[in-house]
Order: sequence, then C-alpha cells, then structure tokens
Amino acid sequence: MRNIKLTVAYDGTAYNGFQRQMNGVGIQQILEVRLAKLFGHELKMNGAGRTDSGVHAYGQVVNFKTSGTIPIERIAIGSRCLLPHDIVITKAEEVDKKFHAQFAAISKIYVYKLYPHVMPNPFLRNYAWHIWRKLDMSAIEEAAQIIIGTHDFSAFRASGGAAVSPVRTIMAVDCRFVGDIFELSFWGTGFLYHMVRNLAGTLVEVGLGARSVKDFKAILDSRERKKAGITAPAHGLYLKEVKY
Amino acid sequence: MRNIKLTVAYDGTAYNGFQRQMNGVGIQQILEVRLAKLFGHELKMNGAGRTDSGVHAYGQVVNFKTSGTIPIERIAIGSRCLLPHDIVITKAEEVDKKFHAQFAAISKIYVYKLYPHVMPNPFLRNYAWHIWRKLDMSAIEEAAQIIIGTHDFSAFRASGGAAVSPVRTIMAVDCRFVGDIFELSFWGTGFLYHMVRNLAGTLVEVGLGARSVKDFKAILDSRERKKAGITAPAHGLYLKEVKY
Repeated sequence: MRNIKLTVAYDGTAYNGFQRQMNGVGIQQILEVRLAKLFGHELKMNGAGRTDSGVHAYGQVVNFKTSGTIPIERIAIGSRCLLPHDIVITKAEEVDKKFHAQFAAISKIYVYKLYPHVMPNPFLRNYAWHIWRKLDMSAIEEAAQIIIGTHDFSAFRASGGAAVSPVRTIMAVDCRFVGDIFELSFWGTGFLYHMVRNLAGTLVEVGLGARSVKDFKAILDSRERKKAGITAPAHGLYLKEVKY
Repeated sequence: MRNIKLTVAYDGTAYNGFQRQMNGVGIQQILEVRLAKLFGHELKMNGAGRTDSGVHAYGQVVNFKTSGTIPIERIAIGSRCLLPHDIVITKAEEVDKKFHAQFAAISKIYVYKLYPHVMPNPFLRNYAWHIWRKLDMSAIEEAAQIIIGTHDFSAFRASGGAAVSPVRTIMAVDCRFVGDIFELSFWGTGFLYHMVRNLAGTLVEVGLGARSVKDFKAILDSRERKKAGITAPAHGLYLKEVKY
C-alpha cells in the first residue's frame, strides 16, 4: 500500500468545516468521495488540523493509504476536474508508510486577516474581518509578543476541545500589513480549540483600546476563558502551513 | 429635488449583471429597492455602465433624484445594514441637477485580471481568469499598445450592443503584475459591448503564442469580429472608475 500526502488549499466559505460538523458537508468528505475515482477504491483520510466552518486553508495536509497505481505527478492535475473550484490540491507526495498527517505534525502556522477600514470591502466579506473603528497596530503587536514561549493557554481555549493539556508553545507571532490587510501570523506547536480566533478577538480589543497590553498579559496569566475577549469570526482565519 | 451621485463597489458573482438581464436579480434593482427605505419613496437610478453577469466593480456610479432629506454624509453608512455584503456604497455626493451618471461620463477605466499559474487558486476562482499555460507578458504588452488612439473597434464588438458608432478612443493601456495577478487596465472614452472581454481574450491568445503581435494589429484593422479571439470570462473583469 502506498501512503500519499496531499497539500490542499480551500476557500472554506461554502463548507461546514474540514471534518463534517453536525449538518452540512465537510471538505474531507468531498476529498474522500471525489478522489476515490482517481484511486479506484474508497479512501479514508487523516487531516492535519480540523478547521471550523468558514475557515480557509492555504496548506491543509491529509494522508491516506491506497492500492491505486496513478503516478504521483498525475494526482494534482487529475483532481482538477473531480473537485469543486473552491478546493485545490497544490501538491501530492508519496511518503513513508509511518507518516500520519495529524500525529507527525511538528508545528503549524495560522494566519488571521483583519481589514481595518471605515467602509467594508465587498471582495473581502468572506476573507478578512472588517474592523471599521481605528486600530492601534503597535498595541496589537506589543500584546501579541506576550504569547511567545510555552504557556497555559486556558484563557484562550473554547470548551469542546479534545486536547487534555492546555499548554502550548508559540515560536513566533508576526503582525504586518499585506496591501490593505493586516495579517496576524501564529506559528506554534499546536493550538487549542478556537485558540487563534480567541487570541485574534482579544488582540483586536487591545487594538481598539478596550483593553491594555497589561490587561492582555493578565488574561493569559489568569487561565480563565471568561476574562478573555470575543472569538474572532471564522472567515478571517487561514491554516497556512503544517510543518513535519 | 436633490440629485444624488453614488459610487458603488460590488462583487458581481451572485448577480445577473448591473441591469437585470433575462432571469435573475440585477444590482441596480437591489440598490433601488433597498435604498428606497433611506429616502422614503421609490427610486429610479441611472447607472454609468452596464456590467454583465459575474462582472465586478470598484467604482460603478449611479445617480437619482430624491425628495428625501437624509444628510449626504449618512447615506453610505446608513446603507450598510440595508444592502447585502457584496454591494457597498463607497461614496455619496450631492451633485448639480443636470448630472447624469451615464451621459455625463467622459471616460472609464476597466481592469481585466489574469491569474497565470499552473494550478488554480481557490480564492481567485470568481475574481481572475486562471491561465495555466505559460504566458508571454511582453508580447501581451506590445500588442496592447496597438489599440491606443482612436480606432474602429468592430473586430472586438459583440453583437447585441446598442451603440451606433464602433469608433472609440483608448487613452492608455497598462499591463502589470499586482502580486500574483497580471492586470490589464484599459482607459477609454467608452467601450462597445463585450469589447474589454474580447480584447482580453485575444491578448491572452497573443500571450499563449497562438497569435502574433502582427496578427493582433491585423485583427483590429480587419474590423471583423470573426477574426478576433475568444471572449474572456466575465469573472476577471472590473469596472474600476468612471471619470466626469
């Protein structure tokens, strides 16, 4: 049996998350059903990270075992007419039989996109969180640096997550404008349920002056979810990369 | 009666063009119906340019007469909760009673966006024409300069247009990468039906090597539609600006 690793980009707007959640269609389900035609049998995929309904990906990773004989370089091209246009396989690789997209992941990069402008942009309505009030970017940047290192992130953890330990290590946080969009990038060993969205929501409250940088530090130290800010909307979040 | 000029940005993906065409909903219709609540009476709008189904706008312009008393600076803000998120009023001005969005227009800028990359991008599927084969950008640029000036554009005119004369003046054409997207901008006194999409389609054929720059000149000179290339898809086209 071959072990195939796929890198997948998707616009999550139309889907109920990567793994199906309650009603609606999940992206993994689309991949399993549509790609079965390329491999000649039912597929069971492992995904590197769950993404919620409306969350996007540049570099989600899945793997699966197959007895199919399609050459590796034909998979991405061959998938184009099988998949809907909002899901694209950007890379296909044959990997060691022990590779598992979720358990082998060493770290992940998530990006949260803000669109700070008085008027909304119709082209970004599903792709960045519109903040119409004035944001203090340097306060956001200062607060964001506080989470670098190994911390108990209970304050930014939603209920419903499966992880046992709330301790995670953040290697880097980067805040910068890319065109009109202010991007917050989080590189960490792993993320708790809703952690990036809770961090982004609380950082925006710092940017709006509703909380100080000192408050942000106190929230992290408190380990109490009720102290933190709102959960930023799903449509600003992107799974950018999974590192192995 | 006040004469109000609105600048409107929209994602045309979900609509059947600016003016309703056959079945489906037009953007003008949405504006007339939804904004009636702000002004207290039925509205009849004039649009600067028709855009086809799937075509977008950064700067469509409309005007209408109203007896409504809403302050001019409240219109854009007040429209936000009335309009769907893919239609945004970016500016509202009170103008001379003689101003007419269509007839007063002196020139327009249209942009056609290409995404030249071997794999499609799920986030651009409705916003740029994906060209997966190698494009010669310098050939496109060279051919595009040929249309500058006053010409009979019959070769690039679709049947069904209302204009009597096929002569138009193009002041400038600009070809450049903006990030990963190759943008073709056309600034002209006016455009025939499907003219920008026919120009873009034929220029892409030049970029693919299917036609030479000399062929492109011969097509323009022929004034025969059947000599020109394909009509580029609607989703790559944007009405960028209307000048008065």
